[in-house]
Amino acid sequence: MEQSVARQLDYLFSPRSVAVIGASNSPGKWGFNIFNRTVRTSSDIRVYPINPNAEDVLGVKAYRSVTEVPEPIELAVIVIPPPAVPAAMEDCVQKGVKAAVVITAGFKETGKEGAKLEEQVVRIAKRGGIRFAGPNCNGHFNTAVDFHTTGGGAKKGPLALVSQSGNFGGHILQRGAARGTGFSKYVSSGNEADLHLEDYIEYFAADKETKIILAYVEGLRDGRRFLELAKKITKKKPIIIMKVGRTEEGRQAAQSHTGALSGSDEIYDAAFHQSGVIRVDEVDDLFDVALALLRQPLPGGRRVGILTSGGGFGVVATDACRRFGLEVPPLVEETIETLSKYLPPRWSHANPVDMAGDTQGSYPSLGTLLKAPNIDAVLGVGCVGLPSQDTDRYSGAASDRAREYNRQMVEGELNLVDGLIERVDRYNKPLILTSTTSSQLSAAIAKLERNGIYGYPTPETGAKVLAYLVRYSEYIRESGNN
Amino acid sequence: MEQSVARQLDYLFSPRSVAVIGASNSPGKWGFNIFNRTVRTSSDIRVYPINPNAEDVLGVKAYRSVTEVPEPIELAVIVIPPPAVPAAMEDCVQKGVKAAVVITAGFKETGKEGAKLEEQVVRIAKRGGIRFAGPNCNGHFNTAVDFHTTGGGAKKGPLALVSQSGNFGGHILQRGAARGTGFSKYVSSGNEADLHLEDYIEYFAADKETKIILAYVEGLRDGRRFLELAKKITKKKPIIIMKVGRTEEGRQAAQSHTGALSGSDEIYDAAFHQSGVIRVDEVDDLFDVALALLRQPLPGGRRVGILTSGGGFGVVATDACRRFGLEVPPLVEETIETLSKYLPPRWSHANPVDMAGDTQGSYPSLGTLLKAPNIDAVLGVGCVGLPSQDTDRYSGAASDRAREYNRQMVEGELNLVDGLIERVDRYNKPLILTSTTSSQLSAAIAKLERNGIYGYPTPETGAKVLAYLVRYSEYIRESGNN
Repeated sequence: MEQSVARQLDYLFSPRSVAVIGASNSPGKWGFNIFNRTVRTSSDIRVYPINPNAEDVLGVKAYRSVTEVPEPIELAVIVIPPPAVPAAMEDCVQKGVKAAVVITAGFKETGKEGAKLEEQVVRIAKRGGIRFAGPNCNGHFNTAVDFHTTGGGAKKGPLALVSQSGNFGGHILQRGAARGTGFSKYVSSGNEADLHLEDYIEYFAADKETKIILAYVEGLRDGRRFLELAKKITKKKPIIIMKVGRTEEGRQAAQSHTGALSGSDEIYDAAFHQSGVIRVDEVDDLFDVALALLRQPLPGGRRVGILTSGGGFGVVATDACRRFGLEVPPLVEETIETLSKYLPPRWSHANPVDMAGDTQGSYPSLGTLLKAPNIDAVLGVGCVGLPSQDTDRYSGAASDRAREYNRQMVEGELNLVDGLIERVDRYNKPLILTSTTSSQLSAAIAKLERNGIYGYPTPETGAKVLAYLVRYSEYIRESGNN
Repeated sequence: MEQSVARQLDYLFSPRSVAVIGASNSPGKWGFNIFNRTVRTSSDIRVYPINPNAEDVLGVKAYRSVTEVPEPIELAVIVIPPPAVPAAMEDCVQKGVKAAVVITAGFKETGKEGAKLEEQVVRIAKRGGIRFAGPNCNGHFNTAVDFHTTGGGAKKGPLALVSQSGNFGGHILQRGAARGTGFSKYVSSGNEADLHLEDYIEYFAADKETKIILAYVEGLRDGRRFLELAKKITKKKPIIIMKVGRTEEGRQAAQSHTGALSGSDEIYDAAFHQSGVIRVDEVDDLFDVALALLRQPLPGGRRVGILTSGGGFGVVATDACRRFGLEVPPLVEETIETLSKYLPPRWSHANPVDMAGDTQGSYPSLGTLLKAPNIDAVLGVGCVGLPSQDTDRYSGAASDRAREYNRQMVEGELNLVDGLIERVDRYNKPLILTSTTSSQLSAAIAKLERNGIYGYPTPETGAKVLAYLVRYSEYIRESGNN
């Protein structure tokens, strides 16, 4: 990335001074919420409301134009009707503003007239050396400096997201928040009149706080650059993309949305495959895969060892593994012998390993499967995560005994977690756990998650995640040999 | 169903007196939890612990054998080691017990010896006219009389579940509970040595409290009977089945699990299709589809009108509809004219209807799409469900204004809900809403859900549910013509 572009994206994500052009005192207006968000940010960032019809906005002295602000402005957030945007951008040029976010919609996506207006804004910005996000976007944030122009109040974390749809970007952020995931940076790229998806991805690649890059894509404007960039980045930092427009009707909807050049879906598939980009189909996949990539070793092959508390889980997990192209190989004699030490006599003696309702041997059995010579990854289903609070209701006499017993069991399980994590590292194989409980209900799962081993809700999800890890790992190994 | 079998299943689900053979004072043993659950039930049901080595179990006087109980026993729950089960069943016959649940594992599923033992138990029970669930199962419940031999404490509701896997049955119940769904009855059918899946389905079909029948199936033992039964039932009460063993490896795992005759997956597909059974692939699908079937009208065709708050949602929803075989037809002139009255000038003027960020017209627009002559079902994405609490943090000056504005908006939305529900009924078309908020966050969604219009978490889920409704509706229409 040119040094100057990276610097200007610094102004976008970490400005020291901000003007909100269109800041408003009227709740319900975008200019109300955006100004409120920016003004609430860390006190290191000075925020100025620009509004020719107000003395102040939310108690902060307002200016008629950005040119009247008595200090240099690094970032302008523009949220005024479309016809007024060129003049506002002109003011920004005059003021020496470095970067802008144009929230305003009503440009290229609305037709010819809008496209003309958009070109005008681009010309003005270019003349002043201003790089900008949007128009027709819903803002951005940088949790490292607690600076938000978009809502939702995302918390800090290792994922960066660029979205070609503002509403879908918000949806992705909300789904992430619902499962406790944090974000480093977010940007809704809108019509990408100036800054493109590729610029943000390149910036996130160099960003210390970002471990994994997520993107919602309707269409790429610069396919060749994307391909070259992605090839370099994915060797070090995974890129996970939800690309929509799989169907002709979906592509048409995308074209009328942000005017993206959609192109055939097969070409995208091939490009993502060649560049190591992980393409997913649904929002939740973004997080399911990202959470596994944050900590888990990549599998050396597609052979999965399955451990379950009962037969039904084994059937569902095996079905799912096969469906996603994974293998469930027979166990070698040595593995069977070792497992027999930990499991009741009626265990399945086969892969999937069915513990037949007795989960006492779960942890050493998971360790045994991790060690097994013909197993590349382990999928545990319903075998860890005793609930800290039993879901049964107890009558008086049963209550004390049950409580003490549960306490001991939960404590016992908690003591086994460290050893299991050590084995994941020692054998360098991923361990995907799917549990009928969750980190809210189980101290063991909470501890595993604090150590980067996430619990997935269903066996199908676990198998799907493993399949993504396998494909990414294959790409990394093959591209390493080139 | 023979009257006598129905009567005996009444004894299973609504016994007046119960003996728990193997009731235990040791937490961690199944006999501890099962006795605790049954004894906690409504006081109309008398529960007796059977344990030759204890004076009492959890404070209740214990008996050495069921034959020693001073009253008639309608149901025996058997949870003792396998070799002791035949003698216990013999005692039950002698006592005149009507029905039993054999929890104990270690029968046919473990091999030849176990199969012999199982046959012995069947012979004894048959001689005494005892019908029984299991062996190798994890119990059952009937919420109407608050009687539970299995854990988890399910709440009352309209879904009945029969599961050929105990652990997966528990998983299904937990996933249902996690989304607030209630159940009427549940049974883990285990090895089905006596009572088969078909018996339970027939019983649930006649059960007043059950509106929809769910099943987890590894293999049918009586395919022809299933087919005949299902054909009759599905015309009145939907049957939704998660049938596993789609892959050869999955079928093998199923065979070693409960010894089910798995058969080819294609045969199952055809059988379900012919009998109107809705076959789903994943646990969450069971509930997604069931919740829609509880209240929504069935669509008259596969033409979907999509309303979204923004373009990205429209693209994803259109893609998903096409992927699931639904149509997204152009709107007729009249619909476009009416929508233009409610929507901002920049709305998409096409299907998907993109409101371009302005959700003020959501409710009348949904009503307009429901009314449209060439639309059979409506999918609304991100257009209803204002959060009752704004996720933005506000600074002092913004706080009061924002709070008052939000209150008015939420109240305004709440007033529109009744009219929307009325239109669903008037035009007799299903309305599937997917929202970025939930019933916990939005008073409007909570009100819609109280009226049976559920909010789904993603556009893909909504489209998938609609596709299931369409196929079921097609079956009902076609079978009605026969």
